[in-house]
Amino acid sequence: MSLIVQKFGGSSVADAEHVNNVAGIVTDTYKKGNNVIVVVSAQGDTTDDLIEKANEINPNASKREKDMLLAAGEQISISLLAMAIEKLGYPVISLLGWQAGFQTTSAHTDARIKRVITDRIKKELDKKNIIIVAGFQGLSRYDDITTLGRGGSDTSAVALAAATHADLCQIYTDVEGVYTADPRKVNNAKKLSEISYDEMLELATLGAQVLHNRSVEMAKKYNLELEVLSSLTCAPGTIVKEVTNVEKMLISGVAKDTDIARISVVGVPDIPGLAFKLFSKMAAKGVNVDIILQSIGRDGTKDISFTVAKNKLDDTLEALNQFMPAVKAQKVVHDERVAKISIVGAGMETHAGVASKMFEALFDAQINIQMISTSEIKVSVLIDLADADRAVSAIHSKFFDEV
Amino acid sequence: MSLIVQKFGGSSVADAEHVNNVAGIVTDTYKKGNNVIVVVSAQGDTTDDLIEKANEINPNASKREKDMLLAAGEQISISLLAMAIEKLGYPVISLLGWQAGFQTTSAHTDARIKRVITDRIKKELDKKNIIIVAGFQGLSRYDDITTLGRGGSDTSAVALAAATHADLCQIYTDVEGVYTADPRKVNNAKKLSEISYDEMLELATLGAQVLHNRSVEMAKKYNLELEVLSSLTCAPGTIVKEVTNVEKMLISGVAKDTDIARISVVGVPDIPGLAFKLFSKMAAKGVNVDIILQSIGRDGTKDISFTVAKNKLDDTLEALNQFMPAVKAQKVVHDERVAKISIVGAGMETHAGVASKMFEALFDAQINIQMISTSEIKVSVLIDLADADRAVSAIHSKFFDEV
Repeated sequence: MSLIVQKFGGSSVADAEHVNNVAGIVTDTYKKGNNVIVVVSAQGDTTDDLIEKANEINPNASKREKDMLLAAGEQISISLLAMAIEKLGYPVISLLGWQAGFQTTSAHTDARIKRVITDRIKKELDKKNIIIVAGFQGLSRYDDITTLGRGGSDTSAVALAAATHADLCQIYTDVEGVYTADPRKVNNAKKLSEISYDEMLELATLGAQVLHNRSVEMAKKYNLELEVLSSLTCAPGTIVKEVTNVEKMLISGVAKDTDIARISVVGVPDIPGLAFKLFSKMAAKGVNVDIILQSIGRDGTKDISFTVAKNKLDDTLEALNQFMPAVKAQKVVHDERVAKISIVGAGMETHAGVASKMFEALFDAQINIQMISTSEIKVSVLIDLADADRAVSAIHSKFFDEV
Repeated sequence: MSLIVQKFGGSSVADAEHVNNVAGIVTDTYKKGNNVIVVVSAQGDTTDDLIEKANEINPNASKREKDMLLAAGEQISISLLAMAIEKLGYPVISLLGWQAGFQTTSAHTDARIKRVITDRIKKELDKKNIIIVAGFQGLSRYDDITTLGRGGSDTSAVALAAATHADLCQIYTDVEGVYTADPRKVNNAKKLSEISYDEMLELATLGAQVLHNRSVEMAKKYNLELEVLSSLTCAPGTIVKEVTNVEKMLISGVAKDTDIARISVVGVPDIPGLAFKLFSKMAAKGVNVDIILQSIGRDGTKDISFTVAKNKLDDTLEALNQFMPAVKAQKVVHDERVAKISIVGAGMETHAGVASKMFEALFDAQINIQMISTSEIKVSVLIDLADADRAVSAIHSKFFDEV
């Protein structure tokens, strides 16, 4: 007998029909002799409805009260799913985040899970109950309801699977798994049967949007096997694990991130420590800087370019403008019409020439590279936004059509 | 400085406009230097929406999961009201039933409050917070969410007021107080400035529908002053207390209850103990019998008539039919076209002739009396449903127009 944690997102429980579909998946798993814990998000439209109600009354409400409001969403979805499972004749119980033992920091709307106290969960498993847990929510040390922010339900599921030593954590979503590229954009994108945590982390960070990286990091930390699969087809999905043992492909995927902007600080005096001051200033503002490029400019000055998330652009420019007089830079320019295209693969550690193969694909397609960044399992390039989809197709063909 | 508990029902917080109105009432009370605890029901339509969602999935869902679902309703209304109060610039915090310390029995959908642990409430009062508490809900000893059933939020408010030794508990509703008769039906119905617990209990039980009797019983037990008033006009309402000291009126009100049915068991042998067996049988079925009349029939038999709530009619008839052979009764007849009209007043204990004055009013209006029942502060008559409104008017005129 195995213990399986299954997570279903808001679109998977959007209405009665979808809730019944999920009830079918859950009870099929239970029927096979498994213990099942299910983590559910709020129904598709509930969260939006609640936010609208709040905005009508007070758009600047405290985060503590926002959490109180939004947490009602999962309370509705867990009880409805439990009712659907009751109708199928199986023993089931729904639990709120705090009932399932989720203790979090008190950073409302973006709390972190500190621990999961599994006493209640164990008691219900002993009773052979299917357990439906509200994702995305927990309780602070002050006994206040908290929510976990973006990707929260994935993180809830992985944390619960780790705390209960589950054999598998299945993340049901609206795609069939992790692909070598976005299947809506690239015709011959292939579904991967396996991928390593590190590759998945790079893909998640790079905008593949299948799994939130907080959940992948936690799965890696506890060496917990994840499976990403579709709640509609239930076909075998993609397994995320420590070491993949399929015949090694050079790369596992091509990802595109268009949610970034490039900033250049032009004409910085060539004095040691200025770059450090610049980036520490931005770190203090909570801005994560991605690709960094430093080049020698005219007159013994240098230009420092870097990318940031688009929603941090205003904050970053504001910080820079305050800082400009002190570093005697000539000007700050920025460009939002850029895209970051990345290839990810554990294979590139042991295979030379992966990066040059990527550059060759871009050259063949006559696409200009503005910046380059590499890590052990990743190569990223910054290009013009208009070329983004064409770049992904060209690179994908170069690596996967030849195989 | 006083501690005031204010309770607002679902229609008082139905939408953003109403929520803002309530926020105004609450902060006005706080501004005057009072500590304020507010108990709120779910928004007008939320509960219905949630029940509809549940019925679509499983009309026979367990009561435990129904409670989980419905309790989300107050979670939404308390956070929205807190947000509205934040907008007005006052310190406020919302608390769920369990956070406010409501410990209940585990009788889901109809739980009883066992105790209120006020540690958190006291902490928030010390911080000078306005406290918004979810009515209608609590926590069982198994850490499961429970709801209190009909009139639950009134009961929550009174229990909280008792536990915190509040100076006053205000029940805001959509009428301006307790009237001598239903003001929508009787033109010159008068608002009472005061009424005793016992009178209010009789009126609540008799269908005046202003306060649920569970809450009045609890207020009486803890000698807690209640005020019933309107959330729209905020004019002084009706005070419910132990002893009223206004000049004593003969009666405090005329009430009508049309939610009853009359049953007659005809031709019961005149043997001791049969009536006892009959009613104990029905008590075992959970049927509350109200007015009872026993009359001598033909052939040394007797007829036993009594009234029950309409929704218990089928259960009662079923129980009787099983029992009929044993008591050798001839037949059971029933009539749903009846109404119970009652006058209530602490004054009638010391004034003779109150009942005969009521009968005179009915005689003058040519209304036939089917059954009569009296208690120390109440006289009830059963009449034809078609005469109900006319009877209330005639009795009300008799007692109040002469004053």
